[in-house]
Amino acid sequence: MLQRLSTLFLRTLREDPADAEVPSHRLLVRAGYIRRAAPGGFTWLPLGWAVYRNVENIVREEMNRAGFQEVHFPALLPREPYEATGRWADYGDNLFRLKDRRGNDFLLAPTHEEMFTLLVKDLYSSYKDLPVSIYQIQTKYRDEARPRAGLLRGREFSMKDSYSFDIDEAGLQASYDAHRVAYQRTFDRLGLPYVIVSAVSGAMGGSASEEFLAPLEVGEDTFVRCSASTCDYAANTEAVQVRVPTSVPFDGVPAPQVADTPNASSIAALVGYMNGTPALKRADREWNAADTLKNVVVRLRYPDGSTQPLVVGVPGDREVDMKRLEAQVSPAEVEPFGDDDFAKHPSLVKGYIGPGVLGLHGASGIRYLVDPRVVPGSRWITGANEHGRHVVDLVCGRDFTPDGTIEAAEVHSGDPCPRCGAPLEIARGIEIGHIFQLGRKYAEALGLTVLDQNGKQVVVTMGSYGIGVSRAVAAVAETCYDDKGLCWPREVAPADVHVVIAGKDESQIAAAESLCADLSRSGIRVLLDDRTSASPGVKFKDAELIGVPTIVVVGRGVADGVVEVKDRKTGEREDIALSSAVAHLVSLCRN
Amino acid sequence: MLQRLSTLFLRTLREDPADAEVPSHRLLVRAGYIRRAAPGGFTWLPLGWAVYRNVENIVREEMNRAGFQEVHFPALLPREPYEATGRWADYGDNLFRLKDRRGNDFLLAPTHEEMFTLLVKDLYSSYKDLPVSIYQIQTKYRDEARPRAGLLRGREFSMKDSYSFDIDEAGLQASYDAHRVAYQRTFDRLGLPYVIVSAVSGAMGGSASEEFLAPLEVGEDTFVRCSASTCDYAANTEAVQVRVPTSVPFDGVPAPQVADTPNASSIAALVGYMNGTPALKRADREWNAADTLKNVVVRLRYPDGSTQPLVVGVPGDREVDMKRLEAQVSPAEVEPFGDDDFAKHPSLVKGYIGPGVLGLHGASGIRYLVDPRVVPGSRWITGANEHGRHVVDLVCGRDFTPDGTIEAAEVHSGDPCPRCGAPLEIARGIEIGHIFQLGRKYAEALGLTVLDQNGKQVVVTMGSYGIGVSRAVAAVAETCYDDKGLCWPREVAPADVHVVIAGKDESQIAAAESLCADLSRSGIRVLLDDRTSASPGVKFKDAELIGVPTIVVVGRGVADGVVEVKDRKTGEREDIALSSAVAHLVSLCRN
Repeated sequence: MLQRLSTLFLRTLREDPADAEVPSHRLLVRAGYIRRAAPGGFTWLPLGWAVYRNVENIVREEMNRAGFQEVHFPALLPREPYEATGRWADYGDNLFRLKDRRGNDFLLAPTHEEMFTLLVKDLYSSYKDLPVSIYQIQTKYRDEARPRAGLLRGREFSMKDSYSFDIDEAGLQASYDAHRVAYQRTFDRLGLPYVIVSAVSGAMGGSASEEFLAPLEVGEDTFVRCSASTCDYAANTEAVQVRVPTSVPFDGVPAPQVADTPNASSIAALVGYMNGTPALKRADREWNAADTLKNVVVRLRYPDGSTQPLVVGVPGDREVDMKRLEAQVSPAEVEPFGDDDFAKHPSLVKGYIGPGVLGLHGASGIRYLVDPRVVPGSRWITGANEHGRHVVDLVCGRDFTPDGTIEAAEVHSGDPCPRCGAPLEIARGIEIGHIFQLGRKYAEALGLTVLDQNGKQVVVTMGSYGIGVSRAVAAVAETCYDDKGLCWPREVAPADVHVVIAGKDESQIAAAESLCADLSRSGIRVLLDDRTSASPGVKFKDAELIGVPTIVVVGRGVADGVVEVKDRKTGEREDIALSSAVAHLVSLCRN
Repeated sequence: MLQRLSTLFLRTLREDPADAEVPSHRLLVRAGYIRRAAPGGFTWLPLGWAVYRNVENIVREEMNRAGFQEVHFPALLPREPYEATGRWADYGDNLFRLKDRRGNDFLLAPTHEEMFTLLVKDLYSSYKDLPVSIYQIQTKYRDEARPRAGLLRGREFSMKDSYSFDIDEAGLQASYDAHRVAYQRTFDRLGLPYVIVSAVSGAMGGSASEEFLAPLEVGEDTFVRCSASTCDYAANTEAVQVRVPTSVPFDGVPAPQVADTPNASSIAALVGYMNGTPALKRADREWNAADTLKNVVVRLRYPDGSTQPLVVGVPGDREVDMKRLEAQVSPAEVEPFGDDDFAKHPSLVKGYIGPGVLGLHGASGIRYLVDPRVVPGSRWITGANEHGRHVVDLVCGRDFTPDGTIEAAEVHSGDPCPRCGAPLEIARGIEIGHIFQLGRKYAEALGLTVLDQNGKQVVVTMGSYGIGVSRAVAAVAETCYDDKGLCWPREVAPADVHVVIAGKDESQIAAAESLCADLSRSGIRVLLDDRTSASPGVKFKDAELIGVPTIVVVGRGVADGVVEVKDRKTGEREDIALSSAVAHLVSLCRN
């Protein structure tokens, strides 16, 4: 393959696009790989499309290698299957809905669980047909509230989604493991570093689930991993489960007392006041922020439009992490609890809310869920439900009983690892893959059963597995760029070799043309900068920006029979005899 | 590649699906290539997707070979560009429109003229950048009133659409010709017979345009071609232009006279009455149906919802061809002129409408367009605008003047070829490609100009070129099937060789496995029927139905060291020594 810059549909930019927030977006636009076409929608230019197709092919090859079979569904689907599983409503505003000319409801599919389930139901009927894993690589749609970061979060994007169908749990585990291995191979080939973290499955339903995150600062996902070299615990922040004892002893804790706490406008002020007031001091040590129990009230909005208040109790050294909370209450959404809402619940005294009025059986009747650290026997300073007053030595299980627990408190760097107790580290990442053990939710909703060995109808158990293909292009770009531009891994790059004709000398042109023809004949993908209108400086800059892994400069050296071969990533250069340049480059590219 | 039927996600059907109207639909469903997923939307199963991808690759390779560059746009697009060109309205009910969560208008693109125009405007600015031809292969959407015939007319389908950009007409012609050649190569490789016919461009705007039709009875398009071996005239019926003299002499034609024409309830009755009534007889010959001028009134509905009546005058030996009429008035749609409408236009006497009241300046004020055969000097029997009366010897240009002409009369087999005068033949076909000289319509509407050699801004001239990729799969299927099933051309087939293990004998299984492993290593795509649950009869039937070009039966012959090699299309069988089977099959497949 030989592509000439003189005719390539490309325009590189010297300036960063104004709307680009992250390096991949900035560089993919500047280097002429993509252009914005719509809010959250991008056009792939020829170089970008070549990269996209390379990534797609790697994904496809690894799926096929694992024995998964490719199919392809429409993106425009009727409402009914999504109604049957509840997702028509659960997806809320994130779903693009439309009507056809007859007024029938359709959607643009965000994922295809329903359709795959119905397809297997349509074709298969016996345990003998299972297991089967099928997949597609397809355009997906989500009406994101805030499309951002270029290809990282768009409204139209390409995804590989697979689904496994098994007769039992053991089968599901085997299918899940096979996908896990296929994903590892895929990301290894893409040159993408990744961490596999435990995840919550959110609106998808199901039980076990893991995410593949590329650990990058620009990522939207926060995850934790254990700092101990002997422990491989890693989890999406939303999925972190606090490790706590089932209860703690509270013998000798005094009876609760209500106290005036003037000027306790912050947790720090409250703790300071307590420690400075003899009657309120703690005997064994000073009070600290983690001894206070902060009760945060929010409003949940359900997909059907109904709302309900919820109070979340967390230790005062932590905030409620809205993303963790949302993951727990999904598909409900979390909204602020406004002054109007307070007016409707006079038992809630803003700033002094305490367990005394909370809970479904309390005076407020509001559901009260607490952080798992609020174990039976734990001892708290908390609101007394009167302005300017707190209650001290309130013991969980002795003096109050919440409706349950919820994992919604912030995770802090240094928190103990739930597996081994060593300190956790916090980092950010881009979600590049997600594997779910869906279980029977979809099969049950849509009636996918098969006959088992005993002739009995059993519900099939499913897995669901996704890779963001267009997002992977951006993730790869995020892991390989420098101040000059992109530097693609070879298997993903739009070409193997970028040949620059430095001068206008006939001999240089002839040498470059001959070299490129030979390389192309050897199966090397070549980009030839044969532009006569661009200066050598512009050509070099463009080569660095475009980021093909090997750059060959055909310049004055031709008079001495040499060309310069440069590694885009390391910057290393060497002069190679023209006579051996083809062999040298072929061996470089085949490595 | 080796795929086993024991694990292939496939279920063949013995019965035709109830909703299948055409052979390709019936067989693609029965052989497990596609399944219906939505009205006008199909799911590709593994075998179907393999065929689809083969077709897509052929299209892509031929586009690339011609130097066209691949890009990829979103399918979900904002309203504004389509508003600027008028297509947001012009597409009427055929466009899928939707709103995002903020209430902004979007559409699912039926074609991408606007976006390609804007992209070139975005990147290019000089005549030096031109010519350029760019294309994409992408999912398109049209809200068809009546999706039908499986993949032939869907609401979601895959299309290759290219666009050329040139500085002048000569450039456009060259780009157009290059696409024409690339299309010929593409359809040749697909094994699709085709006729290139002149076409009208309809809602696309623009001037010259040709369609590639696969001449098949199941097609929705009607076309004509000249029966003379020396003439290559061919045209879509909508595009046929009647060849007429500029005028005919009318010396000696008597003055028009109005006559009672009792019982003239049909053209035949009218003509019979005329010939049988001495005062009305024609001097030189008998009157015939072609001497009568029938005036048909319709209502046009414009995209903005407004309506307007139109009278079309055609010779009485022909009906108005609604598809020809629609092509002429597009984007307006043609509706019947009802009793309500007649009530509003009392000058129109149903059954006796004549030129006397027609035309924008006539008593009715209704626009009056006539068939081109109604040339100045031509002499007609037509309605007298009074019940039971006609006018005879009404001469066009002498006694009435229409507002213009329109090509809306039926084309008859045997009509003279507009190019050479020999009789025309009529046939049906499937539109598989369409090439347009769009001209400057889109560039003007969207402001795509470049600097020419003199530093002047000039509007770019464009071409637009489409191939229905998913439709081509069905078209290929329509050209190669028999009563047993499909018979794919090798380059399109889901595999090269379909190996059937006829018995359960270990030696047969071992021989088949070894043969398939060797073939696969040689790069041959193999489908191996290794099912133990299916009888030999079922396996043979499935092999015929699936339609891989070469079928190998590994059966009892193994004991004598032979296998049977069968050509799916011709049915020819020969026994081949197992020892030379690989070489034999490789040479068959590489032919």
